[in-house]
Amino acid sequence: MIRSVLVSLTLIITTSAPVAYARGTGDLGLVIERASGSIQIIETTNNSSLGRVEGLGDLSHASAVYSRDEQYAYIFGRDGGLTKVDIIAQKIVKRTLQAGNSIGGAISQDGSLVAVSNYTPGGVKIFDSGTLELVANIPATYGDEKKTSKVIGLVDAPGKKFVFSLWDANEIWVADVSQPAKPQIEKFKNIGRNPYDALISPDGRYYIAGLFGEDGMALLDLWNLNAGVKRILDNYGKGEQKLPVYKMPHLEGWAMAGTYAFVPAVGRHEVLVIDTQTWTEAGRIKVHGQPIFVMARPDGRNIWVNFAIPNNDTLQVIDTQSLEVIKTMQPGKGVLHMEFEPRGEEVWASVRDKDQLVIYDTETFEELKRLPAEKPSGIFSTTRAHKIGL
Amino acid sequence: MIRSVLVSLTLIITTSAPVAYARGTGDLGLVIERASGSIQIIETTNNSSLGRVEGLGDLSHASAVYSRDEQYAYIFGRDGGLTKVDIIAQKIVKRTLQAGNSIGGAISQDGSLVAVSNYTPGGVKIFDSGTLELVANIPATYGDEKKTSKVIGLVDAPGKKFVFSLWDANEIWVADVSQPAKPQIEKFKNIGRNPYDALISPDGRYYIAGLFGEDGMALLDLWNLNAGVKRILDNYGKGEQKLPVYKMPHLEGWAMAGTYAFVPAVGRHEVLVIDTQTWTEAGRIKVHGQPIFVMARPDGRNIWVNFAIPNNDTLQVIDTQSLEVIKTMQPGKGVLHMEFEPRGEEVWASVRDKDQLVIYDTETFEELKRLPAEKPSGIFSTTRAHKIGL
Repeated sequence: MIRSVLVSLTLIITTSAPVAYARGTGDLGLVIERASGSIQIIETTNNSSLGRVEGLGDLSHASAVYSRDEQYAYIFGRDGGLTKVDIIAQKIVKRTLQAGNSIGGAISQDGSLVAVSNYTPGGVKIFDSGTLELVANIPATYGDEKKTSKVIGLVDAPGKKFVFSLWDANEIWVADVSQPAKPQIEKFKNIGRNPYDALISPDGRYYIAGLFGEDGMALLDLWNLNAGVKRILDNYGKGEQKLPVYKMPHLEGWAMAGTYAFVPAVGRHEVLVIDTQTWTEAGRIKVHGQPIFVMARPDGRNIWVNFAIPNNDTLQVIDTQSLEVIKTMQPGKGVLHMEFEPRGEEVWASVRDKDQLVIYDTETFEELKRLPAEKPSGIFSTTRAHKIGL
Repeated sequence: MIRSVLVSLTLIITTSAPVAYARGTGDLGLVIERASGSIQIIETTNNSSLGRVEGLGDLSHASAVYSRDEQYAYIFGRDGGLTKVDIIAQKIVKRTLQAGNSIGGAISQDGSLVAVSNYTPGGVKIFDSGTLELVANIPATYGDEKKTSKVIGLVDAPGKKFVFSLWDANEIWVADVSQPAKPQIEKFKNIGRNPYDALISPDGRYYIAGLFGEDGMALLDLWNLNAGVKRILDNYGKGEQKLPVYKMPHLEGWAMAGTYAFVPAVGRHEVLVIDTQTWTEAGRIKVHGQPIFVMARPDGRNIWVNFAIPNNDTLQVIDTQSLEVIKTMQPGKGVLHMEFEPRGEEVWASVRDKDQLVIYDTETFEELKRLPAEKPSGIFSTTRAHKIGL
């Protein structure tokens, strides 16, 4: 009797244990499954799926950041949902519907605060990363009429800062959250019409907002805030016929190789090359379609690009020395995102319409594996936990 | 009766569990305790010690790398010992005495191979990172007499390569280990007398060996191997009176800010500034003593420097915009190493003669905490798992 109870108990303990098994978290990642409101937990050492977490709401255009220990993911949903997931236990720890319409978030340098940028109501909300309790609310109020702007391009920066742009107000704000309840905000006005997304350099120094309402981009040197916002690439697009924009490109990340930065040209079949020494255009690379994500392999030797419809079945690779396209691949319709493995030897791509993840060797371009996923979009590796501005 | 058995069983299970508890590994690190042949496992979220692992042999001048999942550390001892430690379970998984006298190691881009550079017998041995079985042996044989050289400056590079230098042979070797059992080796000769250490740029492109036997440094562009080794900074040291060298500086890492690289000047109270666009000297910064480690904060805004005896009680911080020393601290005698937290908000320093680790806020330079450690030297954060060349 006692023995059988013990055996049953042992079994119960054994079978209930796997939800919190011990393993390193440096090779983990998650994939947004937008249609089903779920995420898949993946690992990149053997390239496999570890499980699925459901119940995350509307995940169209969702993104994620990680806690500094790489155990927790914070997922920002389009519906204003902010969900904290334990990726070891594979379960939701906490979930809050913090706004009506959101567009991404960031985690502070020290990992203590999570910020979300909102369209409705426009502004930034800041939460304790442990409890998800609201610690600060920054409405994006502007002008004499005290209107509220949509907020985009939110990133973290060194010195416990968040930087973001106001789509309607044409402003960039730098919020110092050293005292979380009392954010110190520095505002830069008239930065250019309708900033649509922004990125920060890997060292956290330069913040650049792309402009949808006019040519050029807005550059802010966070080491020299007194110098204010500088307009760069003013000639970009001038006098040329505008193409229809099928999908807004993303400025997430910062494809940088040596002193060159690579960004998608809005509405054009081109990748722009910026000389970061002079902040002038160093070239344009003809590509297969309107670029969406322009991402550098971690060693900066190649740039990988995906495209808007009707060319979203294609991936292209650019060599950063010759500035030429050296490889074109067609993994299938709906290539929505790519993520490099931590040191760049392999890359994962989500192919929505095939319900697949495709993994490539980045040296040989050989396709290594396909894994099933439900309408996959964003892929986020835990290595982002250690990066500034991602 | 049954209940009491159950309670005891639960207690047993609970108390035996902590050796493999589930937690993220992104905020972990280890500290070499050289005198006692042990390592301390630390975490940087609450800044605490999690435990100690003993029995690692002679750990003077020891260093470490991590598995790509950040669960295992590989520690390279001076006595030729290679020890694989599970940092979650806090125990030695495997240990091998692979040579008589060793000087550091590296892990391949994909994490499958661990390489060790040896003085005796001179060469590089390559091990399977899972089993620690020897998969390749590369003796550093040179010249007509087939002598064997000491090997130094071993780093990993993208494309599954290891790069290292031969102290006695004045050579740099690039080993492609795509087929581990049959390394393809490219040798560069007459690179300059007695390379004493080397570093690789954070993107894995440029390998630079410091020369002890003559002025200047040897530069190899791994993207353009056909161009061969180029001598740079030939004027560095020329015609000046040599100072006695109290301790060889380390070129570990690559302190880089914008286009400047910062390296310790051998035997001088100076940090050299190199313009990486032209590979010429861009300046020299007077510092408190002979620099040992010259390390960039992850955002590149500051450089932290420690020194050889008799100045090893001091740390200095250089601003990379003004190129001036902006802070001097004296944590105590025997400051042997520093390690930044992943996104750079805090830094840990080992103070050997005080048996302490000191933690500073890198923005305010405030001392935050001291923790006990037995004659601490190297500090290694798991974030290195995701970095090229570290």
